[in-house]
Amino acid sequence: MASGLKTAVLGATGYSGLELTRLLLKHPRLEKPVLLSRSGEAGQSRDLAEIFPVLSGNGGFPLQALSWTSLQHQGVGLLFLAVPHEVSRSLVPEALATGFRVIDLSGAWRLKETQNQAVYGFQNNDPSTAAELSAKSVYGLPELNGDDIPSATLVANPGCYATSVILALAPLLRAGVVDRGRGIIADAKSGVSGAGKEPTARTHFVSVADNLSAYAVFGHRHTGEILEQLRLNPDELIFTPHLLPIPRGILSTIYVHLNRAMLGREIESCLREFYAGKPWVRVFATPQLPQIQFSLHTNFCDLGFCLADDGRRLVLVSCVDNLLKGAAGQAIQNMNLMYGWDEVEGLQ
Amino acid sequence: MASGLKTAVLGATGYSGLELTRLLLKHPRLEKPVLLSRSGEAGQSRDLAEIFPVLSGNGGFPLQALSWTSLQHQGVGLLFLAVPHEVSRSLVPEALATGFRVIDLSGAWRLKETQNQAVYGFQNNDPSTAAELSAKSVYGLPELNGDDIPSATLVANPGCYATSVILALAPLLRAGVVDRGRGIIADAKSGVSGAGKEPTARTHFVSVADNLSAYAVFGHRHTGEILEQLRLNPDELIFTPHLLPIPRGILSTIYVHLNRAMLGREIESCLREFYAGKPWVRVFATPQLPQIQFSLHTNFCDLGFCLADDGRRLVLVSCVDNLLKGAAGQAIQNMNLMYGWDEVEGLQ
Amino acid sequence: MASGLKTAVLGATGYSGLELTRLLLKHPRLEKPVLLSRSGEAGQSRDLAEIFPVLSGNGGFPLQALSWTSLQHQGVGLLFLAVPHEVSRSLVPEALATGFRVIDLSGAWRLKETQNQAVYGFQNNDPSTAAELSAKSVYGLPELNGDDIPSATLVANPGCYATSVILALAPLLRAGVVDRGRGIIADAKSGVSGAGKEPTARTHFVSVADNLSAYAVFGHRHTGEILEQLRLNPDELIFTPHLLPIPRGILSTIYVHLNRAMLGREIESCLREFYAGKPWVRVFATPQLPQIQFSLHTNFCDLGFCLADDGRRLVLVSCVDNLLKGAAGQAIQNMNLMYGWDEVEGLQ
Amino acid sequence: MASGLKTAVLGATGYSGLELTRLLLKHPRLEKPVLLSRSGEAGQSRDLAEIFPVLSGNGGFPLQALSWTSLQHQGVGLLFLAVPHEVSRSLVPEALATGFRVIDLSGAWRLKETQNQAVYGFQNNDPSTAAELSAKSVYGLPELNGDDIPSATLVANPGCYATSVILALAPLLRAGVVDRGRGIIADAKSGVSGAGKEPTARTHFVSVADNLSAYAVFGHRHTGEILEQLRLNPDELIFTPHLLPIPRGILSTIYVHLNRAMLGREIESCLREFYAGKPWVRVFATPQLPQIQFSLHTNFCDLGFCLADDGRRLVLVSCVDNLLKGAAGQAIQNMNLMYGWDEVEGLQ
Repeated sequence: MASGLKTAVLGATGYSGLELTRLLLKHPRLEKPVLLSRSGEAGQSRDLAEIFPVLSGNGGFPLQALSWTSLQHQGVGLLFLAVPHEVSRSLVPEALATGFRVIDLSGAWRLKETQNQAVYGFQNNDPSTAAELSAKSVYGLPELNGDDIPSATLVANPGCYATSVILALAPLLRAGVVDRGRGIIADAKSGVSGAGKEPTARTHFVSVADNLSAYAVFGHRHTGEILEQLRLNPDELIFTPHLLPIPRGILSTIYVHLNRAMLGREIESCLREFYAGKPWVRVFATPQLPQIQFSLHTNFCDLGFCLADDGRRLVLVSCVDNLLKGAAGQAIQNMNLMYGWDEVEGLQ
Repeated sequence: MASGLKTAVLGATGYSGLELTRLLLKHPRLEKPVLLSRSGEAGQSRDLAEIFPVLSGNGGFPLQALSWTSLQHQGVGLLFLAVPHEVSRSLVPEALATGFRVIDLSGAWRLKETQNQAVYGFQNNDPSTAAELSAKSVYGLPELNGDDIPSATLVANPGCYATSVILALAPLLRAGVVDRGRGIIADAKSGVSGAGKEPTARTHFVSVADNLSAYAVFGHRHTGEILEQLRLNPDELIFTPHLLPIPRGILSTIYVHLNRAMLGREIESCLREFYAGKPWVRVFATPQLPQIQFSLHTNFCDLGFCLADDGRRLVLVSCVDNLLKGAAGQAIQNMNLMYGWDEVEGLQ
Repeated sequence: MASGLKTAVLGATGYSGLELTRLLLKHPRLEKPVLLSRSGEAGQSRDLAEIFPVLSGNGGFPLQALSWTSLQHQGVGLLFLAVPHEVSRSLVPEALATGFRVIDLSGAWRLKETQNQAVYGFQNNDPSTAAELSAKSVYGLPELNGDDIPSATLVANPGCYATSVILALAPLLRAGVVDRGRGIIADAKSGVSGAGKEPTARTHFVSVADNLSAYAVFGHRHTGEILEQLRLNPDELIFTPHLLPIPRGILSTIYVHLNRAMLGREIESCLREFYAGKPWVRVFATPQLPQIQFSLHTNFCDLGFCLADDGRRLVLVSCVDNLLKGAAGQAIQNMNLMYGWDEVEGLQ
Repeated sequence: MASGLKTAVLGATGYSGLELTRLLLKHPRLEKPVLLSRSGEAGQSRDLAEIFPVLSGNGGFPLQALSWTSLQHQGVGLLFLAVPHEVSRSLVPEALATGFRVIDLSGAWRLKETQNQAVYGFQNNDPSTAAELSAKSVYGLPELNGDDIPSATLVANPGCYATSVILALAPLLRAGVVDRGRGIIADAKSGVSGAGKEPTARTHFVSVADNLSAYAVFGHRHTGEILEQLRLNPDELIFTPHLLPIPRGILSTIYVHLNRAMLGREIESCLREFYAGKPWVRVFATPQLPQIQFSLHTNFCDLGFCLADDGRRLVLVSCVDNLLKGAAGQAIQNMNLMYGWDEVEGLQ
């Protein structure tokens, strides 16, 4: 094509950044992306293939230092940030002021600003700018906020756990069939890439293999996103993450009480109708349930369910690949919507 | 020692049977156990070390065909059954009639007979005998039923999932602090040895690795045991098992609503007091939670918890090694009680 | 495109068959493939997505019974066989006689017919046809036999282990620098999908996890292919396969003695020159060595090496994804050559 | 018992140290060991169970700071060091001078002093002491050096890889049947605990899972031990370690040429005779080969082999648990010999 969109990625050296880079490279609407490295981040490496040898043999992947003027000269229009949320808080105001559109994969801009302080403890030199940007940022879950994404300049790409939980619950909550007072439980299990690339005692192979552990009970940051997007009160949801001995993939088992006895086919219809025309959600028919393997290396969120004989107790199962629908794939989906392209382009 | 107890194991060729055999071999009160093989079960093998080479170099492990008179001649007093529940249903009446005491690791005798038909679909040629045996069998969870086990002739060794769930919930339910009407959720995750040694599409390495799946939602047989032992109504508990990509170990995440606001130290006291003097339950102090690795290759059931700020929503985490506290180790613990020995003998 | 090539796959329900189907579906030169199921093979399933739910949500994947006339009516030109070698032996003569071109993923047609009896024990009703077909079949390793593949009617797709070993050794053997008399060692390690989808005691998760085992020492069938393609005598090579606790991927560590002291850069040049213009072999520069992860989910064969200080003892490391360059990906590469397309089409 | 031996462990917070501590705790001849922590090593922890919760519920495991006089007052006679080799180099001279016997699990004292500089780069403030200690240290492989261990004051516990390779090769080399000139290949594969507890990019779960990699080709430090103990020249052995995606266990596949055609039963006899009366080596009969699982959690070194039809090319397979026979178990075995106890005490 004569001239596609020029994009840039900051943070290509992390797991989500690598996945994003691979998707950008094969997207039919794009020129080759500019890869940016924060100073020191990539050590002596000047090429992403030195860090991820899986990329070698496909030409060069030079890493540039971040410079707004250089990005302008190269004609970059869209910037992806796959960096820690503190870094995003300081860079995004500059990036938007310089005229770039931004898709941010961190948690920096997902919440209302009042919540940001509570959840992330952000302290801003320039509170009014932060509040303004938080207000204009769009939570980039296309199946819910697809109307607002096309015109957004700042898209806050959702958390991986949050994606799996929100997509499972939204249809039933919107349909008003959930007895919220009884409380909703989201018991979620994730592969280790969700914990990031930093080597720690917790991500050491010997700590994870042959193991399972719950963590951050009543305290995981993705809880805030889930509550906001689903308009739940904090006491209406318990979200418990677990660390699985696998590299990638999330399965969330979600328990809800319905406010009336329903039939299985009513539940299935509720899910199917909500996601009609949404290419990246698959609803499984009872009794088949999603498994992590089914959505691995795809951008699908897979949903299934079991209903108790009493018709009132419902178990939902929701699976995503945390690096795709839970991060880089969803970022591509958001980009497609921002530029008026088909939601599935570059993701099949 | 001049003359220890003589035991026999039927089903030593399965995962639980192997683990049991290894424990029996090193138990200081026992003579070398008689190993029994159902016809055809062990193929051409005449020695257990041919099936499990890990045993080789420790002397012979000859497999005998089952014969009541031969067992009597060999002076066997206690028989362990690690066979499918249908097999146990047909063998146990004979074994008891012949004068053996029995510890049965299957699900055949765990439930009240009225429940047995519903859960296992047993159809008995001799219903009165079956009812009589179900009535006299003792559910072999020493921490709950320690008073009845010493005099039992038939001990029904609990299911692995059931052990992890019952031990977590019993203290709080007995203390009357659980709001049962709000419903209890037990989201349990198990390693693959819990699914048995039979090769199936579901236990194929490629099906399990890099995966997680929920199964038997609202329909797992261990639910019956949990309900009976905890005296819960069926609509007060949802039990959801998942298959983990690890060989062994169970972690159950259990959600309860309390009927009054409590403090963390009240919860901890409740658990500690209930298990005071019980050597095989460890209560972890907040904020530390059990992980599967901590109890692996031990007979411990590990318990921990997190309490919400409102003091009313409680998450319990319970871990066991499914082959030890969830099967063979607990069988040894039951034997120790049946013969008046210390509960920890042969298990440390 | 107006009209692409129409292909059919027999054996889409196995691991290689699934991978092949996924590649065919996205190949730009092809119409949607016809999926064939041997009678009984797929049970009651009529759609491949019932067997592999990962495919669901992408439209239907109906399974047809094999019928030559039906395939002709549907305009199929090329048939892929991903079935056991005995099945291939009986079907390929018919398929070729009916006018189809065939790419066979089994071991049925890889060897000279004299070797076939020795290695596979084939007994033919029609020995002359078998001999004729074995003679005209082309061993489908494009980097070695690229000249013969374009005109072939029967391509014998190489074994996964064989691909990794042959590609590592061919450049050095062709250059005449290997001291064959000292013997070559190929110590190969493969993920479990290479052992097929049949559930057996050997592929049970508990047998494979936390384990490593050598098997078929001095007796693996791929040895025959390696010897023939590299023109080695049987006593010049020891090939030892091992089963790794991972789903897919092969790493072969290969030991050769050189017949003169060489420099590392000479070895690297030898490899690079041999594979100049070959898009699916990557040569790593010392000291970097390939790892299984680097080539996973790609069609690359990755090669690296370490040379001893004496310049005469060489360790080669070769990695492939056994389901791609070791099976389905290589089949696509062969198809590309057979139809005059670029070797990389549909594989990036 | 009235008064057992008092031991101390420095480095109990590492993987080998934990395993060693667990063995010492259950050894019938010992008092409870003193656990020592290097300053800062254990962070704020004062009890080993805080670092390894698997230990909790078994009483306290207080960590002391190292003090020679305190150890003397506590009546310690034997000191185990499970610390980096540099630390061992500085501590052992003091420990011996103070009158302790020492079993050192590091590589500090395994080699002749002339080799130490080459392999480990040690630079000594006091070269004569270092040389003297290297000369008097005994390489603690009981099956080879059992005569020297009883009177040793400093035992250098062998490396894990070295143990697996030396025990496989020693019988054949001592019998003089190996054609050393043809070169010996030891292709070894180890679980991740062998790489230590330090979190690094290399030990991150995502780097190891679904992967296999060769490393330190022609450059692993254990090569030195193997050469010295087997009296091989450097050009007679290639030793290649690989990192397996499992927590523990080593399998070494070893290739030798024999200097005359032999029968399988001659090989088996050679191995069996060499290890007659050695309780911790198991020789498998052809065609059974050791697998990593068979020796896991045991102190056995398992040996098996396959002989080519020509009777001259031999593949040996050797397995050990790297934390037991490859480290802590062997240390216990050495202690048993040093104090005149049965080699198997505390290890069954």
